[in-house]
Amino acid sequence: MAEFQTAVSQDGLSHVAQLELGSNPNELALRRPFDPVVHDLDATFRLCRFADLKGRGCKVPQEVLAKLLECLQQDETAQDHEHAHFMHMAIPRIGIGMDSAVIPLRHGGLSLVQTTDFFYPLVDDPYMMGKIACSNVLSDLYAMGVTECDNLLMLVAVSTKMTEKERDVVIPLMLRGFKDSALEAGTAVTGGQTVVNPWCTIGGVATTVCQPNEYIVPDNAVVGDVLVLTKPLGTQVAVNAHQWLDQPERWNRIKLIVSEDDVRKAYQRSMDSMARLNRIAARLMHKYNAHGATDVTGFGLLGHAQTLAKHQKNEVSFVIHNLPVIAKMAAVAKACGNMFQLLQGHSAETSGGLLICLPREQAAAYCKDIEKQEGYQAWIIGIVEKGNRTARIIDKPRVIEVPAKEKDGELW
Amino acid sequence: MAEFQTAVSQDGLSHVAQLELGSNPNELALRRPFDPVVHDLDATFRLCRFADLKGRGCKVPQEVLAKLLECLQQDETAQDHEHAHFMHMAIPRIGIGMDSAVIPLRHGGLSLVQTTDFFYPLVDDPYMMGKIACSNVLSDLYAMGVTECDNLLMLVAVSTKMTEKERDVVIPLMLRGFKDSALEAGTAVTGGQTVVNPWCTIGGVATTVCQPNEYIVPDNAVVGDVLVLTKPLGTQVAVNAHQWLDQPERWNRIKLIVSEDDVRKAYQRSMDSMARLNRIAARLMHKYNAHGATDVTGFGLLGHAQTLAKHQKNEVSFVIHNLPVIAKMAAVAKACGNMFQLLQGHSAETSGGLLICLPREQAAAYCKDIEKQEGYQAWIIGIVEKGNRTARIIDKPRVIEVPAKEKDGELW
Repeated sequence: MAEFQTAVSQDGLSHVAQLELGSNPNELALRRPFDPVVHDLDATFRLCRFADLKGRGCKVPQEVLAKLLECLQQDETAQDHEHAHFMHMAIPRIGIGMDSAVIPLRHGGLSLVQTTDFFYPLVDDPYMMGKIACSNVLSDLYAMGVTECDNLLMLVAVSTKMTEKERDVVIPLMLRGFKDSALEAGTAVTGGQTVVNPWCTIGGVATTVCQPNEYIVPDNAVVGDVLVLTKPLGTQVAVNAHQWLDQPERWNRIKLIVSEDDVRKAYQRSMDSMARLNRIAARLMHKYNAHGATDVTGFGLLGHAQTLAKHQKNEVSFVIHNLPVIAKMAAVAKACGNMFQLLQGHSAETSGGLLICLPREQAAAYCKDIEKQEGYQAWIIGIVEKGNRTARIIDKPRVIEVPAKEKDGELW
Repeated sequence: MAEFQTAVSQDGLSHVAQLELGSNPNELALRRPFDPVVHDLDATFRLCRFADLKGRGCKVPQEVLAKLLECLQQDETAQDHEHAHFMHMAIPRIGIGMDSAVIPLRHGGLSLVQTTDFFYPLVDDPYMMGKIACSNVLSDLYAMGVTECDNLLMLVAVSTKMTEKERDVVIPLMLRGFKDSALEAGTAVTGGQTVVNPWCTIGGVATTVCQPNEYIVPDNAVVGDVLVLTKPLGTQVAVNAHQWLDQPERWNRIKLIVSEDDVRKAYQRSMDSMARLNRIAARLMHKYNAHGATDVTGFGLLGHAQTLAKHQKNEVSFVIHNLPVIAKMAAVAKACGNMFQLLQGHSAETSGGLLICLPREQAAAYCKDIEKQEGYQAWIIGIVEKGNRTARIIDKPRVIEVPAKEKDGELW
């Protein structure tokens, strides 16, 4: 099945590593594992402990949400039917984290594209946490093919359980991470809201005003399209496995499967991946005539693929054959039984890749182009068939092990 | 000092009550005091208990915030200086709850006006809490003279401590309240984010794209202007006094000052006031050539007056002579010592009124017009003098007792 091979050869990877390292030395320094002691905090300080739930855990389950939101959805029927489709898209996505609303404006054919997302710390490095939160909220715009963000608001809750010292170290680092990613995305944070709350929280609101040709309504997949994914899966597994390094009883369950070094590398790779902007991925959607996309977040690859499939105009369904997973994390997930359901497509991702429907003849060029510009691989993972607007993963999907990279540039 | 008298005679009030009551009977039913038992909840259910802090308590103190946000503010100097003033306004207001950012857009002279605000329950009626949250976030637009909201996102956190039953009763009521106020404001909720969190949280993001003549930059006060306030003060006092009805040791401290009935009426009046939109107040700012405004929220009348004064182009200062306060709440505040600092201007308000700089010759007409359209009083409370961009309350301000109104329309 040549069409599902990784689009970029392994030879491309040393180039990748070089690209990552060529950047500014400050950033490199900041990407060393976060050491609380360097910041005058206790060695046992862990940002993640300032919230009891992480990743999908922080979401209200989809079926509960549907019930709670019934009163809003009744509105829809009363809406202007011309825009009912957009409304329909936007409202059920509340809480799913990929909820860009598209609102026709009163002025000259322009539309407002807007999204919000916030969550709790899932990595212990506050600077990286800020970057991830920013990339995550912008990703909802990028999934619509929107590449310019006109405004960012930031939402922050300082944990009531932080000492003043912890607060004064951690919050500025988170804000700086958020801001740096905003600058990288060509936008800026102009406001927001800061409160105190038992759980530390960070997120934002991304807004763009754009012309119709600036966004891609994700409903145009046709039979014969292929599905491209722009980031590997397994961030949730890596983040959990990394926490288990501190918990002997958990660690013992997986230590025959992975080494501590494997886990640290996967964790580092996950942070890099979650902090990476999907902006170039979005820009290339236009160049290669994408028929629609979504970003993979809290409901996992299959959850988001199903939502995307459900909203297609044509009678299509999505079949996923390949699962690119951060190295060793598929094995860890298997060793954990049903906990993650990674290979079933249900493992939560944070700030995951774009899942894009592309014309078959454009997909390889898309993947090559993104690798050339960013130094990261993208993968053709599935096909669009005739069907009833559902998505599935084949029985024995091929797992593509995506190498982690060392900070010093060595591959392994 | 005739210029500081209440702008509307007491005779107007029975008319007021009638206006309030003439509206739709469903709404009236919903405005009966919230009874948990009617909704199959335990009689002791109190929404406010799902957060430990309320009102100003949920804000990060201004001086802490300033320190935390330093890294964002450094950005400002690098910004386009043409817009530095707007940026300057927006950024320091993070967390103050009146932070409409004004962002020049890429398209034809349009600007994005945007704000976010969220907080924890401060009243026990979930429906009213939803209305208050919506009015509160819209108020940031209205303070800029913006009367149309193009999009609303809703931010909700379901408390981890709620039972399923409580959640299924309370959250839909809050959402309905939020939605109803959005409809009343001529806008709609199109998306948002729902998470679980120890503290129940509700808020939103309000966004408008508008032409320059649709918003009023709040920096144009001139000597001789007067200050108008469109809602009475004392909501925080009323909300607290109402909670003390359940706490004998607290209640004993004020029971010689107010009756239980006084407190219930003040609480009801506070809820009505907090749920009321500042939209007509905003519309009339254009008609009567307002020179700028802010809304009174978490930092109290004086806190917000000072922020507004600080941002004036001209060398002016604000002097406040009159404090309209919900009936009996000034006495309660006095009996509580320094706790509220209501008469010092520091008592937090939620979804408070607009504080508007108006040309002296227009102010009375403004107040008369708002009373005619809405049936609510507005008050001339101070003057704009030559000065160094500060605000103060005179030594012995005149307290205007603002009558609460009974649900059945009787005044007392």
